[in-house]
Amino acid sequence: MLVTRPSFRGVGLFATANFRSLSTVPASILDVFKYPPPLSSRLSVRGWVTAVRAQKKIAFVQLTDGTTSQTLQCILDPSLVKGLKTGVSVELEGSWSESKGNGAYELKVGPEDTVKILGDISETYPLQKKFHSSQFLRTIPEFRYKTNTLGALMRLRSNVDFSLNQFFNTSGFYKTNPPLVTSSDCEGAGELFTIESNSRQKGDTAFFGKKAYLTVSTQLHLEVLCMALSKVWTLSPCFRAEESDTNRHLSEFWMMEVEIAFVEDVHQLTKFTEEMIKATVRPLLEDHNGIGTDIKDSKRDPEVAKEMELRWKQLLAKEDWDCITYTKAIEILAGAQRDGTVKFEYEPVWGDSLQSEHEKWLAKEYFKGPVFVTDYPKEQKPFYMLLNSDNKTVACYDLLVPEIGELVGGSLREHDLKKLQNEIERRGMNAEEIEWYVKLRESGSVPHGGFGMGFERLLCYLGNVDNIRDAIPFPRAVDSCVC
Amino acid sequence: MLVTRPSFRGVGLFATANFRSLSTVPASILDVFKYPPPLSSRLSVRGWVTAVRAQKKIAFVQLTDGTTSQTLQCILDPSLVKGLKTGVSVELEGSWSESKGNGAYELKVGPEDTVKILGDISETYPLQKKFHSSQFLRTIPEFRYKTNTLGALMRLRSNVDFSLNQFFNTSGFYKTNPPLVTSSDCEGAGELFTIESNSRQKGDTAFFGKKAYLTVSTQLHLEVLCMALSKVWTLSPCFRAEESDTNRHLSEFWMMEVEIAFVEDVHQLTKFTEEMIKATVRPLLEDHNGIGTDIKDSKRDPEVAKEMELRWKQLLAKEDWDCITYTKAIEILAGAQRDGTVKFEYEPVWGDSLQSEHEKWLAKEYFKGPVFVTDYPKEQKPFYMLLNSDNKTVACYDLLVPEIGELVGGSLREHDLKKLQNEIERRGMNAEEIEWYVKLRESGSVPHGGFGMGFERLLCYLGNVDNIRDAIPFPRAVDSCVC
Repeated sequence: MLVTRPSFRGVGLFATANFRSLSTVPASILDVFKYPPPLSSRLSVRGWVTAVRAQKKIAFVQLTDGTTSQTLQCILDPSLVKGLKTGVSVELEGSWSESKGNGAYELKVGPEDTVKILGDISETYPLQKKFHSSQFLRTIPEFRYKTNTLGALMRLRSNVDFSLNQFFNTSGFYKTNPPLVTSSDCEGAGELFTIESNSRQKGDTAFFGKKAYLTVSTQLHLEVLCMALSKVWTLSPCFRAEESDTNRHLSEFWMMEVEIAFVEDVHQLTKFTEEMIKATVRPLLEDHNGIGTDIKDSKRDPEVAKEMELRWKQLLAKEDWDCITYTKAIEILAGAQRDGTVKFEYEPVWGDSLQSEHEKWLAKEYFKGPVFVTDYPKEQKPFYMLLNSDNKTVACYDLLVPEIGELVGGSLREHDLKKLQNEIERRGMNAEEIEWYVKLRESGSVPHGGFGMGFERLLCYLGNVDNIRDAIPFPRAVDSCVC
Repeated sequence: MLVTRPSFRGVGLFATANFRSLSTVPASILDVFKYPPPLSSRLSVRGWVTAVRAQKKIAFVQLTDGTTSQTLQCILDPSLVKGLKTGVSVELEGSWSESKGNGAYELKVGPEDTVKILGDISETYPLQKKFHSSQFLRTIPEFRYKTNTLGALMRLRSNVDFSLNQFFNTSGFYKTNPPLVTSSDCEGAGELFTIESNSRQKGDTAFFGKKAYLTVSTQLHLEVLCMALSKVWTLSPCFRAEESDTNRHLSEFWMMEVEIAFVEDVHQLTKFTEEMIKATVRPLLEDHNGIGTDIKDSKRDPEVAKEMELRWKQLLAKEDWDCITYTKAIEILAGAQRDGTVKFEYEPVWGDSLQSEHEKWLAKEYFKGPVFVTDYPKEQKPFYMLLNSDNKTVACYDLLVPEIGELVGGSLREHDLKKLQNEIERRGMNAEEIEWYVKLRESGSVPHGGFGMGFERLLCYLGNVDNIRDAIPFPRAVDSCVC
């Protein structure tokens, strides 16, 4: 698209370059790297200074605008360097040149050119050119994303989000948005947030006419949409009032959930889950649009970058991921405990929950990669899961990955009205609250199933991030809502 | 992709067809239409019966699975039709044949074939083959999406969502997720929802350590991310505790918001807004993947479908949409009132808000299409907008479209620390609450701007829908939270 409004500063300079960005929005540093203008072109760039090194005859300025972890090297006449320091925002105009240094290109800004400072920094500017801990950075939410590591994580988040959108779109799924405000507690876990209008006085009628909560999972509503559209998915905020202050929990997180009609075997779901996750990994490993390089370059430690790439390779290594039953998992765990291969804190016993240590050992040490565990005992799982013919286990699965443990959980759903009602009664649940859900089984019910995946957990795994609070902008947890 | 698990019923039958859907998930009726298997293939399909017509020697069954508004015609031997009625879910196996009727293909199910009823309907099943009002359908949230009209709207929603994702991805934007739980009131409008943990007792410390609200707009947090990544967008739930029970308001809705660094002219934003909306319309008008036909076919009244298509054409008709200042808008409105062209209830006076009647008249009658109105009086607008040199107006805009009125609102943001602080003080706002936001202007501040668009409003306009409660699954409003 050619430039139609040459009065916009900077934009007109790109008129001859093959920019895919819209002419009305300034080109970014990523654009300049991806679609370099002809050599010797006059070019105007904007961004934040990450480093300045001034010598007698020449000054080097590294510039970023957060669109890539690669900085643009600018060679300035030393007379122009006044006021430039880490954090300052500038507009630089110069000529586009081949680089004599590491990068392929650089911007030469000569004595006749101008450097315009757009925004200076205060004396208390907290981001200096040194290492800052994640914990410290979380205390300055207004500045933390300016760091290369967190910036790259946000770009990773965006790219994985887009990969998921593409995957589901080409797979014939419809994206939908179940409600966040709900009057039912999907999992019965009880760790709910209540919601009320600010202006309603206590004693007034409730705003929604009844008690209202923030959703802990969109599944029940998603099943309604599945019974109408067959293949649906969502990527949606969910909320859990967990008091635990760990590096694996958030009070507000994004969950990807999927429901598929007419599936009758839990292995249809595991295989689909596998395809979905592989679809988010391939663009990273194949470095589509440089997104793999971007996140690797953002790691200070090359070992960390290498380990991250190993994770990607591990996810794509096998054509079919390993898959065992819960019963088999217990056998393996108990066997390893018995023969002294490993020493677990919790004894693996059929009927008990798999502990995090069990999950991680199975994935990391035993299978050395992702593994599906299916058919858990029914007492461990929610009311809506399809009972197996053994009457003891349900047609469900968890996906375990090294370091993280559970990444995905899914199941076939009980689609028989009577059986679902019996299970609700047996558990002493409030049937009235979910009458609308149960009714789904009354008219044109079909076999179906689905799964949920914590989006931030996936990002932690793909991005080799230790603390889940770095995988989401402005993390929320108990006692933590900085702004 | 070839079938690897032929034991999954139905799937093996498609082995020779060019299906893009994954082999592990059953093919949908849309798949069958898009990638028809060779004639005479054995085929198994699943779905819900929408109509049955049994004659002596032949029976016609229309089948849907909600993936397209087009039903699959099945020709059954009359001996097989027992138990089939509207709403029942079935699995039909037969041979794929050329149609003698309207459709290109049909499924022939002969006396030797089997029809399997997956789920019967109850006697009280509310969806019969007749017209149901939107209002009635909202009382049966568990069934309403099975209707053709609402199903097609949900598919439109998904398709427009995907168009937006593609547009921003190719435009170099990063998608991000600002928090929904916040401790600041972005617009100062006061119609907030408060949020608290279910298990915390009154008098206990607040769960988040302070008062927490659901966000009314993600803008302030999005600006933080913009100052780090340059070009960011989100499609996110927002919440407003509005007491008004109208066909234009929701308490929970999805808002698309955008922030762009280094823009300095409000017309860069209007042009970008225009490109974005056009990117959602083109696939509909050009009928990519049949999505235009799908939503048109779902309308009972061909006039409604025609009017919808006219809207799409109107949005693409002009290379540059009209754009006037607020001052000019008042002149046009007052002139039309004066010379008797139109009789407004509210007198158009400089300084007063544009009323909905003004907005709709400007777009529908005067410009006969979308129109941007820029530079409103500062007293009408929030504190963060960039003041123009006239000291009276701000660098902002609204996009007005026929029938709907305001669809988008945006502005340049005040990026000067002192000016922003002065405005906050002048308005008597609580500066402490948004100190983190103001601090952005302290270190490396740059000119920037952005806009917000109610996602459901766009869907109402593109889908020719009167009531916004039909554009979102499970609408929430005052006294309305059905399940």
